[in-house]
Amino acid sequence: MSFVNVPSGSDFPIENLPYGVFSTSCNPKKRIGVAIGDQILDLSVVKHLFTGPLLSDKQHVFEESTLNAFMGLTRPHWTEARQTLQKILGKNEAVLRDDATLRQKAFVAQKDAQMHLPADIGDYTDFYSSIHHARNVGIMFRGADNALMPNWTWLPVGYHGRASSIVPSGTPIHRPWGQLKDEGVDPVYGPCKTMDFELEMAFFVGGPATKLGESIPIEKAQEHIFGMVLMNDWSARDIQKWEYVPLGPFLGKSFGTTISPWIVTMDALAPFMVENPKQDPAPLSYLKHDDPYTLDINLAITIKPEGDNTDHVVSRTNFNTLYWTLKQQLAHHTVNGCNVRPGDLMGSGTVSGPEAGQYGSMLELSWKGTKTVAVGDKTRKFIADNDEVNIVGYCEGNGVRIGFGDCRGKLLPALPRAQ
Amino acid sequence: MSFVNVPSGSDFPIENLPYGVFSTSCNPKKRIGVAIGDQILDLSVVKHLFTGPLLSDKQHVFEESTLNAFMGLTRPHWTEARQTLQKILGKNEAVLRDDATLRQKAFVAQKDAQMHLPADIGDYTDFYSSIHHARNVGIMFRGADNALMPNWTWLPVGYHGRASSIVPSGTPIHRPWGQLKDEGVDPVYGPCKTMDFELEMAFFVGGPATKLGESIPIEKAQEHIFGMVLMNDWSARDIQKWEYVPLGPFLGKSFGTTISPWIVTMDALAPFMVENPKQDPAPLSYLKHDDPYTLDINLAITIKPEGDNTDHVVSRTNFNTLYWTLKQQLAHHTVNGCNVRPGDLMGSGTVSGPEAGQYGSMLELSWKGTKTVAVGDKTRKFIADNDEVNIVGYCEGNGVRIGFGDCRGKLLPALPRAQ
Repeated sequence: MSFVNVPSGSDFPIENLPYGVFSTSCNPKKRIGVAIGDQILDLSVVKHLFTGPLLSDKQHVFEESTLNAFMGLTRPHWTEARQTLQKILGKNEAVLRDDATLRQKAFVAQKDAQMHLPADIGDYTDFYSSIHHARNVGIMFRGADNALMPNWTWLPVGYHGRASSIVPSGTPIHRPWGQLKDEGVDPVYGPCKTMDFELEMAFFVGGPATKLGESIPIEKAQEHIFGMVLMNDWSARDIQKWEYVPLGPFLGKSFGTTISPWIVTMDALAPFMVENPKQDPAPLSYLKHDDPYTLDINLAITIKPEGDNTDHVVSRTNFNTLYWTLKQQLAHHTVNGCNVRPGDLMGSGTVSGPEAGQYGSMLELSWKGTKTVAVGDKTRKFIADNDEVNIVGYCEGNGVRIGFGDCRGKLLPALPRAQ
Repeated sequence: MSFVNVPSGSDFPIENLPYGVFSTSCNPKKRIGVAIGDQILDLSVVKHLFTGPLLSDKQHVFEESTLNAFMGLTRPHWTEARQTLQKILGKNEAVLRDDATLRQKAFVAQKDAQMHLPADIGDYTDFYSSIHHARNVGIMFRGADNALMPNWTWLPVGYHGRASSIVPSGTPIHRPWGQLKDEGVDPVYGPCKTMDFELEMAFFVGGPATKLGESIPIEKAQEHIFGMVLMNDWSARDIQKWEYVPLGPFLGKSFGTTISPWIVTMDALAPFMVENPKQDPAPLSYLKHDDPYTLDINLAITIKPEGDNTDHVVSRTNFNTLYWTLKQQLAHHTVNGCNVRPGDLMGSGTVSGPEAGQYGSMLELSWKGTKTVAVGDKTRKFIADNDEVNIVGYCEGNGVRIGFGDCRGKLLPALPRAQ
């Protein structure tokens, strides 16, 4: 228990302690904080309290404007930081609890803070690890016979995404322009007509940067997985459908990707690891691991239409429906010698469960626009201008809730363009 | 003419003046330089000479360890920098020529310098803009009927690449491991058997970073094109062939991409602009431009096998064979509101001419390994361990040669891995 009040149902009890980067109107400098209840502990103010054997000469990482330097340390450093935080925030520890002056400087109410991207993201990769999503999209784009490509069950399919357009929760996204093509006619230039979200999660790479040519063996993959966020991989389906062959999605995705600003660490998530899914065929040697590394994370996606005050749930699923684990994704990504750097972001791909109410995109929920989805007293096939989309994610067990906070974005109308 | 001696056939006369980042053994600090003849002018030493109206209060950009800050200024700033450099290096200007102490500090022999990446590359995009290459690869991977996808003549197809594994000329590349699959059998884990190069060029984005949601109209695209380099997009064909559906190339490319370290500016290349290729169908409005922006750049690729002292030319082509212009690539990339930042790198895709001796990859030169390619007294179908590959690129006209320097890399054997 913490001496800081944690409201019932909060995403951020002392068992969580996610890291983020924030600023305030009275201090616009970006700095690293930890969420607890509805407060933020400003680590730049309390860095001198990290006096453990590993961090006592590394306190400078808590003065940075991003988490890259802290992520670039090692798992034992991260664990020591968590132990220190749980101690100094604990109700039995006086150092912060009884020092009103330090408390005054060190805590900021979340409502008074602006959140920023937690790291400089050097490279962003997006996987495609939900078999249900891959099969659904495959059926719609290529027909049932070619739905799941032959490589899908052998390797975690993924692709490089655009890093520049990743934004933190709360940043509005404009409906993109692009080339749209209906069957049998020439393509036209105009705003996307089939705007969509993709319910995803993503992990941040940690540990020292690897060298070009080196791989991360699957036995060591967890040393390079720092923590996780929610992610909305906004998708323009009409742009994507026309452009994506043969080199993959490009402008259908690169106009914006929203992440939740609080990185929940793997130490906080450890109690929620469950058995991995059975994989058939058996993975090749470099992808094989037996320890559970599948996460039981409840996920939901909500839409709030303009003028409505409620986030209406349109789908509920769970991260444990993924076929490939985060370890397999990272081992695969580096098997060819591709180097990774702390702050790299790796998305899961859309998380869809097996049932219709568990799909992670409007494309699937409306089955390519062939049916409507109820959103309060309205209906949708895709996303309408001024709809606000949010992702909810949390683990729950033994009376503890480890949540991820908001991953929210409003779709603004297309900006005017010469045509 | 410069007071600095420019040997006959040099890539770097005073009409060129490309920018790069270098260090020396006696001064390991990375700093910005300009190539002239076989020398480098260290701009951190002569920054006080940039006294023009635009740069006099921006001299700090020449003290940086990358070119990002200079690239982030505007085209008029770049042009003023070039005018200043042509003046202070000119044979009639005394400021450097007659100051032995300053000359001593300001010039470094290229043979004594180590070149680094010229910029922090935030995002790397690779296009696919050679119709000859796209058609050749399409025939081999998908058959003649699906060779050129219907979208190819409507938009410059491209995809996001891996920024972390871009390296400067001279960096060796290890043969990558990955999943390889022959017809009719299960995939296996092992080192790539069909290693290839791709002869490409790339441009660096310049100008102030654009905002998410904004596009760069084609009329303004040249304000955001800073300069060009040679690029070898190393490719593992067997890995690529198995992995690339449906999300595009990934590990078949991300183990290494070599660029030439000297960025040749668009001002230096301006005299070599020629008519654009005829485009049928006519491009949509946002891709339409009539001013010549196609570059007449002679290109060749060479292989030097182990124990051989000669770079043997295996292909010659020209950058003027590209279908889509750099302006069209950039206008398309941003039409959806994708933001770009100074230092972003955009590759052309493999440059193949229409004839067999003009192809930009071994895949095409050996037609998928069905015939051999002469390399001195040896033959190749793909690249062998310890082969050194280089790209040569230069413009020539009116007695002036504007060259790009080396884009060289040696393929080392696969590193040992547990199997």
